[in-house]
Amino acid sequence: MLYLISLGLFDEKDMSLRALETAKKCDSLYVEFFTTKMFTDAQRISILVGKPVREIMRSDLEDRMEKLLREARTKDVGIMVGGDALVATTHVALLIEAKKLGVETRIIHGSSIYSAIAKTGLQIYKFGRTTTLALPQKNYYPTSCYDAIAHNAKAGLHTLVLLDVRSHANEYMSVREGLEILLDIEKEKKQGIIKPDTMVVAACVIGSEDEVIRYASVKKLLEEKIEKTPAILIIPGELHFLEEDFLKLFFK
Amino acid sequence: MLYLISLGLFDEKDMSLRALETAKKCDSLYVEFFTTKMFTDAQRISILVGKPVREIMRSDLEDRMEKLLREARTKDVGIMVGGDALVATTHVALLIEAKKLGVETRIIHGSSIYSAIAKTGLQIYKFGRTTTLALPQKNYYPTSCYDAIAHNAKAGLHTLVLLDVRSHANEYMSVREGLEILLDIEKEKKQGIIKPDTMVVAACVIGSEDEVIRYASVKKLLEEKIEKTPAILIIPGELHFLEEDFLKLFFK
Repeated sequence: MLYLISLGLFDEKDMSLRALETAKKCDSLYVEFFTTKMFTDAQRISILVGKPVREIMRSDLEDRMEKLLREARTKDVGIMVGGDALVATTHVALLIEAKKLGVETRIIHGSSIYSAIAKTGLQIYKFGRTTTLALPQKNYYPTSCYDAIAHNAKAGLHTLVLLDVRSHANEYMSVREGLEILLDIEKEKKQGIIKPDTMVVAACVIGSEDEVIRYASVKKLLEEKIEKTPAILIIPGELHFLEEDFLKLFFK
Repeated sequence: MLYLISLGLFDEKDMSLRALETAKKCDSLYVEFFTTKMFTDAQRISILVGKPVREIMRSDLEDRMEKLLREARTKDVGIMVGGDALVATTHVALLIEAKKLGVETRIIHGSSIYSAIAKTGLQIYKFGRTTTLALPQKNYYPTSCYDAIAHNAKAGLHTLVLLDVRSHANEYMSVREGLEILLDIEKEKKQGIIKPDTMVVAACVIGSEDEVIRYASVKKLLEEKIEKTPAILIIPGELHFLEEDFLKLFFK
């Protein structure tokens, strides 16, 4: 059996009791940190579970997938994953290969930014599609994130903007960088989606004791130089007065 | 301090280690089951935590909110909630009252249907807004759910349809009921959103060993009489071939 075991939002304590119980009964345990930033490591998880846990890289999962799946034919193999396990599409590919080889699979769920954003007081059913703001590269400056925000805004919906994580290079986009990139795209697209006076929600390390959530104008948030990661932005659509009251009361 | 402690998707084993640790240090513990169906009870949670846990009803939370918050001024009070705690807007109101009374609050997160749906292989960033299909009542037959599906479909996006939970009457909408209601609304609205041959995803008791996930036509799913609850439907938008492969491989 192949288990995908979610670690949840922040560190190893966000694992569920079911996740810990499942990990304890696995014959082999692996953990990956390349799809999301976690504040733990293989050693701490290993101490908690009472078994060796090996960290695997993206390349391992791609190159040695067959070996891992062969192991799961006869043994219980667990792969531990930050957040909720299937949110990263990487692992969907692993499940497909497992199925083709006749290896049974099971998912153990965990907490995720997708529901945690409800703690901003913004109603979760008023969020449109989620989008990722990519780190610009030399010849690649994607603007699809801006288009997604604009599409949601037109329907009055909020947008969760995940700020890019490129963990192999240890690069995580901060609130400041994210806002600067969005302002740059605005200069080009000119739809009035993100301006210095636009009120947005910025949040970092959600679920931790160091969590920061702020509701302020883009200009003010840039001045605050919020650098903690992982970070997200929420571009609110039409605010119900209760949503706005909550934002002002807690995060202004 | 007032803690909102998430129980996660299915039963008490979906609590995180952080949730259990927090519950253990609370002076008073309450649990509510009215915002979502959980396969556990106050007694089982009490045994797990090693402390008394009192079940509270919706009316308790509304009528005795002040008493509870006064208690949280001087003691650590935990309210345990199914799924991820703030998804139910009921608890947003509680946090606002707490803030007004100067009571500090903290949220402990848990697994939720909002990210768990990624296990269908449908990419989570291709979901538009989520909608709830309400149980029709005598003089009230809401069709906003249909409109949300239509809005998402126009943009090629998937829709998560939560089937209504009216827990005080122990009524939970099944896949069969949900599909019948949507077909009824289709007869009236005639936008071709839900027809007998529309392929949809139906899922029940996600996160449990009894989990059912099916990808089939509305007609076929109606014949299968899927009655387990809580249940959801997903009305897919435009399917990427990898999404369709996954659905067919695992759930057809």
